[in-house]
Amino acid sequence: MAKRVYLFNEGGKDDRDLLGGKGANLCEMTALKLPVPFGFTITTPTCREFFDNGNQLPSRLEQEYRVALDLVEKKMGANFGDPENPLLFSVRSGAAVSMPGMMNTILNLGLNDEIVEGLARKTNNPRFAYDSYRRFIQMFADVVLGVDGHKFEKIIEEYKANHNKVDDVEMSAEDWQEVISLYKTITDFPQDPFEQLKLAVEAVFMSWYTPRANFYREMSNIPDSLGTAVNVQAMVFGNFGDDSGSGVAFTRNPSTGEHSFFGEFLFNAAGEDVVAGTRTPLSLTALQDKLPAVYDQLFETQNQLEKHYRDMQDIEFTVQEGRLYMLQTRSGKRTGRASVKIAVDMVAEQLISEKEALMRVSPDHVEAFLHPMVNPDCKRDIIASGLPASPGGATGKVVFSAEEAVEVAADGTAVILVRRETTPEDIQGMKVSEGILTVLGGMTSHAAVVARGMGVCAITACGTLSINDGAGTITTADGTQIKRGEIITLDGNAGDVMLGDIEKIEASNSDDFQTLLSWADKNRRLKVRANAETAEDAAKARELGAEGIGLCRTEHMFFEAGRIDVMRGMILSATIEERQTYLDKLLQFQHNDILALFEVMDGLPVTIRLLDPPLHEFLPHNEEEIVALAERIGKPVDEIRERTESLKEVNPMLGFRGCRLSVVYPEITEMQVQAIISAAVTAVEKGLKPYPEIMIPLVVNVREIRLINTIIDNGIQKVLQEKQISIPYKVGTMMETPRATLGADRLAPEVEFMSFGTNDLTQMTYGFSRDDVGKFLPQYLEKKLVESDPFVSLDQRAVGRLMEMAVTESRARKKGIKYGICGEHGGDPRSIQFCHDLGLDYVSCSPFRVPVARIAAAQANVGRELGDV
Amino acid sequence: MAKRVYLFNEGGKDDRDLLGGKGANLCEMTALKLPVPFGFTITTPTCREFFDNGNQLPSRLEQEYRVALDLVEKKMGANFGDPENPLLFSVRSGAAVSMPGMMNTILNLGLNDEIVEGLARKTNNPRFAYDSYRRFIQMFADVVLGVDGHKFEKIIEEYKANHNKVDDVEMSAEDWQEVISLYKTITDFPQDPFEQLKLAVEAVFMSWYTPRANFYREMSNIPDSLGTAVNVQAMVFGNFGDDSGSGVAFTRNPSTGEHSFFGEFLFNAAGEDVVAGTRTPLSLTALQDKLPAVYDQLFETQNQLEKHYRDMQDIEFTVQEGRLYMLQTRSGKRTGRASVKIAVDMVAEQLISEKEALMRVSPDHVEAFLHPMVNPDCKRDIIASGLPASPGGATGKVVFSAEEAVEVAADGTAVILVRRETTPEDIQGMKVSEGILTVLGGMTSHAAVVARGMGVCAITACGTLSINDGAGTITTADGTQIKRGEIITLDGNAGDVMLGDIEKIEASNSDDFQTLLSWADKNRRLKVRANAETAEDAAKARELGAEGIGLCRTEHMFFEAGRIDVMRGMILSATIEERQTYLDKLLQFQHNDILALFEVMDGLPVTIRLLDPPLHEFLPHNEEEIVALAERIGKPVDEIRERTESLKEVNPMLGFRGCRLSVVYPEITEMQVQAIISAAVTAVEKGLKPYPEIMIPLVVNVREIRLINTIIDNGIQKVLQEKQISIPYKVGTMMETPRATLGADRLAPEVEFMSFGTNDLTQMTYGFSRDDVGKFLPQYLEKKLVESDPFVSLDQRAVGRLMEMAVTESRARKKGIKYGICGEHGGDPRSIQFCHDLGLDYVSCSPFRVPVARIAAAQANVGRELGDV
Repeated sequence: MAKRVYLFNEGGKDDRDLLGGKGANLCEMTALKLPVPFGFTITTPTCREFFDNGNQLPSRLEQEYRVALDLVEKKMGANFGDPENPLLFSVRSGAAVSMPGMMNTILNLGLNDEIVEGLARKTNNPRFAYDSYRRFIQMFADVVLGVDGHKFEKIIEEYKANHNKVDDVEMSAEDWQEVISLYKTITDFPQDPFEQLKLAVEAVFMSWYTPRANFYREMSNIPDSLGTAVNVQAMVFGNFGDDSGSGVAFTRNPSTGEHSFFGEFLFNAAGEDVVAGTRTPLSLTALQDKLPAVYDQLFETQNQLEKHYRDMQDIEFTVQEGRLYMLQTRSGKRTGRASVKIAVDMVAEQLISEKEALMRVSPDHVEAFLHPMVNPDCKRDIIASGLPASPGGATGKVVFSAEEAVEVAADGTAVILVRRETTPEDIQGMKVSEGILTVLGGMTSHAAVVARGMGVCAITACGTLSINDGAGTITTADGTQIKRGEIITLDGNAGDVMLGDIEKIEASNSDDFQTLLSWADKNRRLKVRANAETAEDAAKARELGAEGIGLCRTEHMFFEAGRIDVMRGMILSATIEERQTYLDKLLQFQHNDILALFEVMDGLPVTIRLLDPPLHEFLPHNEEEIVALAERIGKPVDEIRERTESLKEVNPMLGFRGCRLSVVYPEITEMQVQAIISAAVTAVEKGLKPYPEIMIPLVVNVREIRLINTIIDNGIQKVLQEKQISIPYKVGTMMETPRATLGADRLAPEVEFMSFGTNDLTQMTYGFSRDDVGKFLPQYLEKKLVESDPFVSLDQRAVGRLMEMAVTESRARKKGIKYGICGEHGGDPRSIQFCHDLGLDYVSCSPFRVPVARIAAAQANVGRELGDV
Repeated sequence: MAKRVYLFNEGGKDDRDLLGGKGANLCEMTALKLPVPFGFTITTPTCREFFDNGNQLPSRLEQEYRVALDLVEKKMGANFGDPENPLLFSVRSGAAVSMPGMMNTILNLGLNDEIVEGLARKTNNPRFAYDSYRRFIQMFADVVLGVDGHKFEKIIEEYKANHNKVDDVEMSAEDWQEVISLYKTITDFPQDPFEQLKLAVEAVFMSWYTPRANFYREMSNIPDSLGTAVNVQAMVFGNFGDDSGSGVAFTRNPSTGEHSFFGEFLFNAAGEDVVAGTRTPLSLTALQDKLPAVYDQLFETQNQLEKHYRDMQDIEFTVQEGRLYMLQTRSGKRTGRASVKIAVDMVAEQLISEKEALMRVSPDHVEAFLHPMVNPDCKRDIIASGLPASPGGATGKVVFSAEEAVEVAADGTAVILVRRETTPEDIQGMKVSEGILTVLGGMTSHAAVVARGMGVCAITACGTLSINDGAGTITTADGTQIKRGEIITLDGNAGDVMLGDIEKIEASNSDDFQTLLSWADKNRRLKVRANAETAEDAAKARELGAEGIGLCRTEHMFFEAGRIDVMRGMILSATIEERQTYLDKLLQFQHNDILALFEVMDGLPVTIRLLDPPLHEFLPHNEEEIVALAERIGKPVDEIRERTESLKEVNPMLGFRGCRLSVVYPEITEMQVQAIISAAVTAVEKGLKPYPEIMIPLVVNVREIRLINTIIDNGIQKVLQEKQISIPYKVGTMMETPRATLGADRLAPEVEFMSFGTNDLTQMTYGFSRDDVGKFLPQYLEKKLVESDPFVSLDQRAVGRLMEMAVTESRARKKGIKYGICGEHGGDPRSIQFCHDLGLDYVSCSPFRVPVARIAAAQANVGRELGDV
């Protein structure tokens, strides 16, 4: 039987999987001889045992932790359940992967009616004792017994109102005693401390599957099987009096990355008071002023921890009667900008290597460098200010709840979520918001931490605003009312709230960012291309580091005004001659567009996909448009209507599109090829180096490719027989039907590249229509029937398996095929890791994702090298 | 270097792959000492060499066949190219698999202006010599030089008209000489016999890839790589005079299977005259009367051949100057009825074993026992009679060309194809016709042979009819006119043509057929189930031998009048309570329907699929229906319209359907399960043995199954907690998304059976929407971009590979899972072979395909056992 309980002096930071992050770090700090209240950790495998055992603690577990508990009592010189010399515990969850705010915590465990009196006597601080007891009852009832926490808040509020008290500090021991007896009217809890402990341990385990924990794991792709550890730690008290307090701090500024010790502190407060954001905390200067020795010790400790962990630390500490206690250390969450600055600075400080620096930056955070910021030169009508909790500039309609945010944002409307404070239940609403504004909280409040993690702009502690969600209004200090749906702008860097839509500027590039990207480029094997159709997009992509175009969707070129009618005329042509006159016009458009791409992408490959969508997409969608078109192109209305009708499809996604168009209308393909090759000829004549790659979409078998290759050859011959220029073109196929991937070995001899179109491949592998999946995918995500949205992160098990079969089997048949991915997954870091491992040659994504992909590609490579991933 | 040329005394019937069927049988007959004109065969690998060599004969080939030719000259006592003693050759194709009428033949090769005179002198029969020469020119020009054959026909017609001649027999040597000089005005051909031979060999090879040969191979699933052999055989002449002639015969009646020698003969005619059907042939009695010794020898020979080959033979022979020559023998094509009778008779005659008998019947032919026949008791308005070329009764609209047949039949309209005679170009039109009627031809004409092969009813040699395709009319002997599009009925057993739609009766069962089916049942491993929803269909299926229901599509039960509104009410319910009242009604309907199935299928498994189609399929499709429904169910029109709109989908095939409905509306699933289990309880109470199998459709992963299993358990509990009855139900999944097949190992622990829904699996693997594929699949088939329609015959390469992965991987995870197939492929013999080889437990098909599937399943098993397949 594996050991289930570890004392804090029995583990270390490498025991994260076994003891959870929190437990491992408590052990590590204990080993570093830092002032950590002693305790023990119940391992994460015990959590799995618990669930496998039908939600029952393993039979010998209590016996095991009682042994540990005895040793904690010895070390702390106090006894659990002893009224004369009581030892109290905090019981906290702690998984291997950080899940801040997601799991439930119980403090002051071990109090009961008798022991609280002993605590009052022993500390000679009855107010503290009864405050601690009421806190314990409140938490225990909420977390273990499932009593609605608001009921307790309400009792306190009513009590205060009846007794003319405003702040907690005004509450005396007697007041708390009365509150406790009121609490007892709404809840019942065990008086036996050991029963309390057992129930608390069970509650921690159970909280692993609360909906909010499930959601966080889903969002963060944390497997359910990890489980949580339980940390049982001797209590120290920040609410002991004025020489006590609680604080949280970062070893560097988590918003800017600046190398300065940065934190918040509340005197005479428990840790929960700081994190909850219900009182606005002080800066650490206040601690330095009042308890300089404690501050110095804290400063020394944080410095030691950062050097020891070689990363910026987020620490929690408590001061009890002028003595410092360390309660937690962990790698600190940070903004994208901060993560880059910290990583680059730490390389300069020789704390970490370039490769390690690369691994320190979340690819998604890179986007912060690309996001717009509020233009500082604009006139600002500042209606309120708060803490700059998460940087960036955001504009949107005011909404007052997470649900409202989800609802309003569903159609793409930008929203700003305005809340008194946020809770983990709000995560989904926060995710869809452009920005978050809270009245309460601080830089380390839930809103701030989560917003930074998400890379969403946020302002917290904007205390001058008052919210009336019922009426749907915010009132500012000067009485201005902002109504639900009104537009406001947040400057997450300055902490300013403004009315209306304020101009934003492109994210300023930073030297650190460029340094990091240069390390990424040095350290990646995967090339990064962009999906782009226009010269502007291509230029942006190249500026952001794209090494070519991986997907140019030629049909986009035909939707432009002045062209769509030519396209329609072509589709509606009755004879091949009529069609040819339209094709000749389209040829000219396409030639020019593609030439522009070759110019921008001079020297780099440009993958041009042949016409893909079903033809009905180009035709008019209603009678009015049909009549108008008939007039414009001089065709009978009936004929257009009939043709439009005849092209309609039941399931267009599985219909007459992709290379099927080339089979039936080879003349369209020939035109496209002529446009591509003639554009390449013109480019060469201009002294440029074009590298066209012609991509055949929606292939199911090699015969299609053979047929289309002959059409392509015809098109090329038509251009090149007139010109004595050699064009280094390639022909390849998009791999987007399961059948193509299952027969890749047969396709191999006929192609020079294969590009995985994982959007369609996912649709067909799942039988999920991207356009219709909204009817059930939300329920699938909610009920955890899928790990994550397979259109966002590549489904490695099935779609990935098809890709792997395709690569392995085609490579065995023919060497030298170039492999890429051009579905949306090409910009998703987890999918990029998969593509790297699969040995693809490039990923292709939207221009703004290119830097993200560069970092992700480097991390994929370095991660494998360092064995981190 | 492999030997490329085999003399007829160097091979035998087992050399079919090397020498083609015709060549192998010529060798075999030679070995049997039958009177076969000597010759040699160029092997099929030479054909592949030819194509690999850029359509060039291998360099040493001519040298090789000249050696053989010398030996043929010695044996025949005549010399190729020698005017004094000329030897002439027939040059024919012959692949390993029979492709009747598909390949080109050249006769009388070796004639030129000089040799024809020698032939006239030597035979003392100038008329014969010049007739032979003009035939040679005609064939050579047509087949080798590509001159339109009709030009020659026209010359003869004009010549006859100008010279008042009607029949060929009226043409003298001089007449033919004049015709020959007219021929020479439109074609040029080599005078050198060796050059003729070389060109003819090349032409035979080239004909392998003519469109009609391609089409035949495609239809018959013959691989392109087989290639054809070339048979070069000394000519004998049926057109030598009145003691000469040509005939074809079958060792048994190919229409009824009766054991009697059966054939046709034409005096003073070449073989081509008999097959072409331009002269109506005589029965063999005519030969017996005039040349009894020849007839006796022929009778003896056919008897010997049938015993030797242990199968009914189709033989070709020529009589020259009273001497019999055997030109070909092969297994004869036969009707379904004949194939069963012959197989069963031959077992009785101890010629073959029961297992061999099973392998002799084409599964498709079995349908002949199931097809309607014209009711013999009906009053018949017979407008014409011909030969009963292929049995069965058929009614349809008159069409005059294959193209017209395809066009009119496209929407399911029954057509009768009426032609003067059919040619291989007509195959596609014949395939879609209910029946075929020709004015010319005989029992062995193209129309007859092909129609029997296809199992299509046909009447040939209906000479009293005259056709005017231009006007679109048929005129009968008495002047009645039948117009294009008019309805006629064919009685393919009697050879009668009737006006209008005459009543048909079910195909009478035959003892032979039942005997064969009993052998099939003894010899198959695969179980055969039926896809059926109604008690009537289920009863028919059981009568035809179904061993259970493999797919009951529950939604079909809801489309009935009186139910659809309840279904709609359920879908449109605003509250769960409202929905429940509708569900309670549906529960009662479903209970009764399923109980009826359990009654019919007493003791056999019944697989019931949970609701599968998207809900919008049940809702009204236009405003009028919406308004009417609103009135009937008392809901606002707006609400119905809105809900209908909101359920619409872009790609319903990949949408909100299948088990996705169970996830979102578990109450529907629970109702269905209650209906199934309560019906089973009632059945048990009635003393029956129900075996319900609940099938979950459109699964993508195991989590769906786990969730739905809990819903199913709930439904079952609700029923069984009231009843103390044990119901032996199973729960399983339909395997129809690629993802399900790719993760079958994970599904395995949660299911008791897996049934491959190959319709959807094919759709998703190819990205082919069954509803839309008509826009491009015809071109795919025509251009040979697919081997065959993947919705008809299972695509073994990709869809089959997914099935194989699923079976292998799930079986490795859990033993005892039952595997089946319930897509349309479950009734397709080639797909059944695949399912057998894959080790599935059952196939499920439409009731009328059950006997076909029973035979096919037995053949799959026996074939592997005998090593034949």
